[in-house]
Amino acid sequence: MRIAVLNGPNLNLLGEREPGVYGRTTLAELEAIVAAYARERGITVRFSQHNHEGALIDDVHALRVWADGIAINPGAFTHSSYALRDALAAVALPVVEVHLSDIATREPFRRISVIADVCVAQIAGLGVNSYLRAIDALANRPA
Amino acid sequence: MRIAVLNGPNLNLLGEREPGVYGRTTLAELEAIVAAYARERGITVRFSQHNHEGALIDDVHALRVWADGIAINPGAFTHSSYALRDALAAVALPVVEVHLSDIATREPFRRISVIADVCVAQIAGLGVNSYLRAIDALANRPA
Amino acid sequence: MRIAVLNGPNLNLLGEREPGVYGRTTLAELEAIVAAYARERGITVRFSQHNHEGALIDDVHALRVWADGIAINPGAFTHSSYALRDALAAVALPVVEVHLSDIATREPFRRISVIADVCVAQIAGLGVNSYLRAIDALANRPA
Amino acid sequence: MRIAVLNGPNLNLLGEREPGVYGRTTLAELEAIVAAYARERGITVRFSQHNHEGALIDDVHALRVWADGIAINPGAFTHSSYALRDALAAVALPVVEVHLSDIATREPFRRISVIADVCVAQIAGLGVNSYLRAIDALANRPA
Amino acid sequence: MRIAVLNGPNLNLLGEREPGVYGRTTLAELEAIVAAYARERGITVRFSQHNHEGALIDDVHALRVWADGIAINPGAFTHSSYALRDALAAVALPVVEVHLSDIATREPFRRISVIADVCVAQIAGLGVNSYLRAIDALANRPA
Amino acid sequence: MRIAVLNGPNLNLLGEREPGVYGRTTLAELEAIVAAYARERGITVRFSQHNHEGALIDDVHALRVWADGIAINPGAFTHSSYALRDALAAVALPVVEVHLSDIATREPFRRISVIADVCVAQIAGLGVNSYLRAIDALANRPA
Amino acid sequence: MRIAVLNGPNLNLLGEREPGVYGRTTLAELEAIVAAYARERGITVRFSQHNHEGALIDDVHALRVWADGIAINPGAFTHSSYALRDALAAVALPVVEVHLSDIATREPFRRISVIADVCVAQIAGLGVNSYLRAIDALANRPA
Amino acid sequence: MRIAVLNGPNLNLLGEREPGVYGRTTLAELEAIVAAYARERGITVRFSQHNHEGALIDDVHALRVWADGIAINPGAFTHSSYALRDALAAVALPVVEVHLSDIATREPFRRISVIADVCVAQIAGLGVNSYLRAIDALANRPA
Amino acid sequence: MRIAVLNGPNLNLLGEREPGVYGRTTLAELEAIVAAYARERGITVRFSQHNHEGALIDDVHALRVWADGIAINPGAFTHSSYALRDALAAVALPVVEVHLSDIATREPFRRISVIADVCVAQIAGLGVNSYLRAIDALANRPA
Amino acid sequence: MRIAVLNGPNLNLLGEREPGVYGRTTLAELEAIVAAYARERGITVRFSQHNHEGALIDDVHALRVWADGIAINPGAFTHSSYALRDALAAVALPVVEVHLSDIATREPFRRISVIADVCVAQIAGLGVNSYLRAIDALANRPA
Amino acid sequence: MRIAVLNGPNLNLLGEREPGVYGRTTLAELEAIVAAYARERGITVRFSQHNHEGALIDDVHALRVWADGIAINPGAFTHSSYALRDALAAVALPVVEVHLSDIATREPFRRISVIADVCVAQIAGLGVNSYLRAIDALANRPA
Amino acid sequence: MRIAVLNGPNLNLLGEREPGVYGRTTLAELEAIVAAYARERGITVRFSQHNHEGALIDDVHALRVWADGIAINPGAFTHSSYALRDALAAVALPVVEVHLSDIATREPFRRISVIADVCVAQIAGLGVNSYLRAIDALANRPA
Repeated sequence: MRIAVLNGPNLNLLGEREPGVYGRTTLAELEAIVAAYARERGITVRFSQHNHEGALIDDVHALRVWADGIAINPGAFTHSSYALRDALAAVALPVVEVHLSDIATREPFRRISVIADVCVAQIAGLGVNSYLRAIDALANRPA
Repeated sequence: MRIAVLNGPNLNLLGEREPGVYGRTTLAELEAIVAAYARERGITVRFSQHNHEGALIDDVHALRVWADGIAINPGAFTHSSYALRDALAAVALPVVEVHLSDIATREPFRRISVIADVCVAQIAGLGVNSYLRAIDALANRPA
Repeated sequence: MRIAVLNGPNLNLLGEREPGVYGRTTLAELEAIVAAYARERGITVRFSQHNHEGALIDDVHALRVWADGIAINPGAFTHSSYALRDALAAVALPVVEVHLSDIATREPFRRISVIADVCVAQIAGLGVNSYLRAIDALANRPA
Repeated sequence: MRIAVLNGPNLNLLGEREPGVYGRTTLAELEAIVAAYARERGITVRFSQHNHEGALIDDVHALRVWADGIAINPGAFTHSSYALRDALAAVALPVVEVHLSDIATREPFRRISVIADVCVAQIAGLGVNSYLRAIDALANRPA
Repeated sequence: MRIAVLNGPNLNLLGEREPGVYGRTTLAELEAIVAAYARERGITVRFSQHNHEGALIDDVHALRVWADGIAINPGAFTHSSYALRDALAAVALPVVEVHLSDIATREPFRRISVIADVCVAQIAGLGVNSYLRAIDALANRPA
Repeated sequence: MRIAVLNGPNLNLLGEREPGVYGRTTLAELEAIVAAYARERGITVRFSQHNHEGALIDDVHALRVWADGIAINPGAFTHSSYALRDALAAVALPVVEVHLSDIATREPFRRISVIADVCVAQIAGLGVNSYLRAIDALANRPA
Repeated sequence: MRIAVLNGPNLNLLGEREPGVYGRTTLAELEAIVAAYARERGITVRFSQHNHEGALIDDVHALRVWADGIAINPGAFTHSSYALRDALAAVALPVVEVHLSDIATREPFRRISVIADVCVAQIAGLGVNSYLRAIDALANRPA
Repeated sequence: MRIAVLNGPNLNLLGEREPGVYGRTTLAELEAIVAAYARERGITVRFSQHNHEGALIDDVHALRVWADGIAINPGAFTHSSYALRDALAAVALPVVEVHLSDIATREPFRRISVIADVCVAQIAGLGVNSYLRAIDALANRPA
Repeated sequence: MRIAVLNGPNLNLLGEREPGVYGRTTLAELEAIVAAYARERGITVRFSQHNHEGALIDDVHALRVWADGIAINPGAFTHSSYALRDALAAVALPVVEVHLSDIATREPFRRISVIADVCVAQIAGLGVNSYLRAIDALANRPA
Repeated sequence: MRIAVLNGPNLNLLGEREPGVYGRTTLAELEAIVAAYARERGITVRFSQHNHEGALIDDVHALRVWADGIAINPGAFTHSSYALRDALAAVALPVVEVHLSDIATREPFRRISVIADVCVAQIAGLGVNSYLRAIDALANRPA
Repeated sequence: MRIAVLNGPNLNLLGEREPGVYGRTTLAELEAIVAAYARERGITVRFSQHNHEGALIDDVHALRVWADGIAINPGAFTHSSYALRDALAAVALPVVEVHLSDIATREPFRRISVIADVCVAQIAGLGVNSYLRAIDALANRPA
Repeated sequence: MRIAVLNGPNLNLLGEREPGVYGRTTLAELEAIVAAYARERGITVRFSQHNHEGALIDDVHALRVWADGIAINPGAFTHSSYALRDALAAVALPVVEVHLSDIATREPFRRISVIADVCVAQIAGLGVNSYLRAIDALANRPA
């Protein structure tokens, strides 16, 4: 099984940006934790992070011939990118929307996801574990 | 560790009610799966289901001297019960909001949760696995 | 044929509460009129009234193995109870929403029904006759 | 007793237009059923159907010296015609608003009636029986 | 004179729940203070608290043959219970709406009361004194 | 100078319809008063009244080769007829919008005029005098 | 008969302020025209203009023992001053709201009048003639 | 192939009404251009224009036994006529909505079309060519 | 202890203005009742009333070196005066908002208070007693 | 004449992505059809497609010294990109907005175009023909 | 060059009122800083501050024969005073709107300025420097 | 001191694009003016302009180890880019939002800034001087 883990804008600053909200784990550490977790379960993972909306869309397009599922933390694009939404809808893959923090307890604009209705699940508020739970969710889907 | 798993109105009909949306697993079967999963991890779980808002609130009150965490699927009370929200806020326990189906792809009224901002996480769209992921989330919280 | 007639909160005060709006017929008298009307047509009716949302939901659940149809006057729950709505949707029975008064000419909040889209018909403004028309409607549905 | 039965725009296509929604009974057949039902009860009925808003208003004006009550299915004028509403308010007759289908389960714009607050009752979702129930309602009003 | 003092959901946790907002006085202590204050003025008081909406409605119904006035702190039902509102409207008693905290300075949803327009007065923000001021208000109404 | 006085739907019932709101003067009497008032000032007037929106539009079109100004009471079309608005905009004549009653003190829907922004003035609340004031307004416009 | 003519903020600049909208007539000239028109009809008029909301309210209070009617151009207070509205409501005099320009064709905020529902009529868009039509309207009211 | 070209209210004034917006071509000239264009392609066209909503609906009904497609410029009915929308939905023909001007750059009310969701295409802003493009669109639909 | 009692616009007309809503007690009588009530409790009170928004603000400013608390009935400024709100926020005194009538049962605009969130309590609907309860509330605050 | 044909995000997947909505023609095939159509009419066309908003803006900037007109299908940027809108406004070229499908019959967010008011026309719902009609529209504009 | 610096309600309390938001500089100190800064640049400045809306309007009127520009901090009138807006529009002077604090990060109502569209610039969030930047802006405008 | 000056989409066209709104100064000239002004004050400035949202975000990230402050004119991203907002929030630098034109007097969508609440100040409407005032503002911040 092959799963792609995508991260959107500003997540390259993880561990440094507002640690009170997002924790002190860096993106590299997060990817290492997810990679180890996946390896133990025989799952291949591939990572990418982009601040460019178009680059994320290009990635999603490319994944349709490689991945069996996508875990995506769209960052602020969650709330505004219809183009990313269309890209996810265009590929025939199960997608899980992931957030580190509990978006329901933050600013109002963070509560609206224009991505959610093309995803099979949402997992939010578990920090790095949100990604592990997404791996579980994609791995355990009925065939 | 002790975790309470609460289910709200109409979830007693699970397996029978709109199986196209909610699956064919009954509430008893769901509770058995969750119980087995918790037992393997040395976690004690207690279950309850109520169609009465007040009964759910009474349960939440009682849990403040027993539980270390709550996983709750509030059913339709998700969208309207400020009293249940206040009860969850009143007890000093971590709460995870759980939904079987992907509420973001259903009727608009199902997208609004008045409970979410007193929970530490939301997990939706994984069927019975949503409950297992909530057990994981509560068990793995930093001390 | 078996039809259940359910009444929601405050309808136990019928005949006493704001008679200028709801008339002077008591709930017992109303049930007697409906029972006589049904008996003449060979229809079995069963009555219940509850001020508790959960009790109405329990009743609806129980009816799925007894009734061929439900006539329900949800009272003020018409405007707020998504849980009652889900209960009515969960049982595979035709439901007719009934109101004594003409809700379109009263306070704005009374014009919104969250129940209506799981019912096959709405009848409002005919006083006790609203219930008789609902009996007709359920009895005359095509097989 | 004399009752007028008015039908608004596009109802002349009844039986042919979207039969999945409106059934296969034609307007002529519907009027025959209503006429027979009324005749058995000693009630005189008069029918008309118009696609022109002004023609419906003219009819309502003329009826104030003939009818004891009006049953009207305003079709799409239900949602927009303040002029028809004013005409119905101007004549001192009881009016019952009738719909063949259950308008609460269709497009959002169909749920708003600008006519309803000048009517004594609304009956929707019973097909042709909606008209018969309206005849009953007008015939059984207290003197 | 006989006054009923009703408390809604979660108020049984008073003194324990969010003391920074609601203070450290328990419900039993609050009721003792109110009872003493009333006894000095020759007023009989009766207390009840319920987490169940239906139980509050039942109480209100029962009070119509006992009480001369009602002081009610509806808790979170303030913002959503049209059924409680109808129950209060149905009994011919003066009602005073009471809140411990200053609801105008809290979350937006707490500023909306669907109960207020069937009450003769609102008193908020005085802690336990809100109840004493309500007793005064009911005792001093013109005959 | 030639002025056309147009009346919209239901104004043919003037004097009979809701006299508490609209007064007891009939349309014929109103037109006689306006005609006499205009004759004294050397102004030619022409009257028409229609319940059909299309007929009013046809009239407005025809007037562009006859009239020097239009006084129109659009009745309920005031609030909904963009087609009448376009017709008034299409002819190069000054238009005064007239209402018998004070529309600002009636139902909310009566406060919105989709006609007003193609008129040079609005006069409301003076009964029959509203028409006379409109005649003055059109007669006294600077050349 | 005695009529007070009140003008609100910035109307002292009439003739100088945005003449394209309000014309070149000064306030003194406007008052002279209105005074002459009233004198011919045996009507006593009194004028005032204030930029202070409170001063306008004082005037309105004082007028209740002098005037038989008020013509008021509230200027920008039209859209915001509930205090001026209450003052006008508090005195038992007929009030006509006057505007020089056609407020329906200007900025949206000018279309909302919080004064209108305590007035018996509105006249707008006739320039100085708006005031003369208001004098007529107050003089011709039935006793 | 047979195509009906319908024009709504005020389009009879084409060439004369606001030529800055709608151009100087008259309706007769427009119909001649469209007829010539269709004739070259072996398509039969039939034209009609009505200021009466009911007349347009009657036309649409009649066309269901004659036309293979409809090109309609509903004029101001675009924004308000649910009855015309229902008529177009009732006949089983492809419909193309046509506008001479670019409605997206005009008044806000012109941007909303209640007709659009029963049409297969919208063409706006091309002047007379909008009609020719609609002919193309209807002629080139896959069988 | 020193308490200032401020009254806003139009309250100088108390006893004369709409006595059905506000009662027949004049402002002088109200102030005498409040003064006597305060004197019995050893509290010094000072009164003022203004129709000028600026004068109320000056008063509030001056009170910051004299008063221990403010009871204010802001009249219509309740709903619009952000300047008065800022003045109340700028002085470090407890403020109680007072209303004679039950504002929740009146016009919608009266339900919105822009003052409330800088006050420690609101008391409404008790007539003159609203002021006495405010004196109690300010006198009984914890040190 | 030189026309640029721009396609926005995800249109590179044409023919593969949701063929039920967008058809089976690929982007290369679409561009070949448009190129052939233009060549027959002596028009030079240039094509580009980008998933990056900034790349589309760069293209638009570059076109101001090459193109005589632009046909653009902005994909999901239609609904959110004010930056693309500003770029189109900044170049002095006629622009036609193109959509393959009938956006009025799809999700609500697809009905709003922030691009439309800087375009001279919109053409939607004709599949590949939408592009050909845009070529016609740009080629036939008056000099 | 002559510039007037106007301050609105409550700004006389500067240095004392919420220093966490507005700083500890008093109005006299602020005016001294601004005066010195202007003197160095050969600019004459005049200061005023009012809590009365009417007094601010009088000042604005008077300035039209003295000042070459106005820097105004309207305080809370920013959000509600259409009368002050009209006064600023009525004089033919460039106006710069000034705020000490960053209004975009405070309460929502502070984000709305009804004054802004009659100003040539807005400067906010620089404390006393906001005024100096406004002096620069007015001094450096092209002749 | 080191200040970065960032410009968003379409600002590379400055001097050419809509000069009536944005003036005739090119971006190179603007940067030269700002550079000279900064050099005189011993401030180092660095410039960049991007039409790509992601490129702006990358720049902001890079600046956190170089700059002491940022002056940014986000162009149309002002109104929609939550990702740019998050990037600015993530770096611990003071940011000043700059606009050439007075955005409060332009299209409504230009009045909303999703960037403003992570900036310390906004300066708009001063043309090139807006940038100079931003340099002043950043240079004069207290240490």
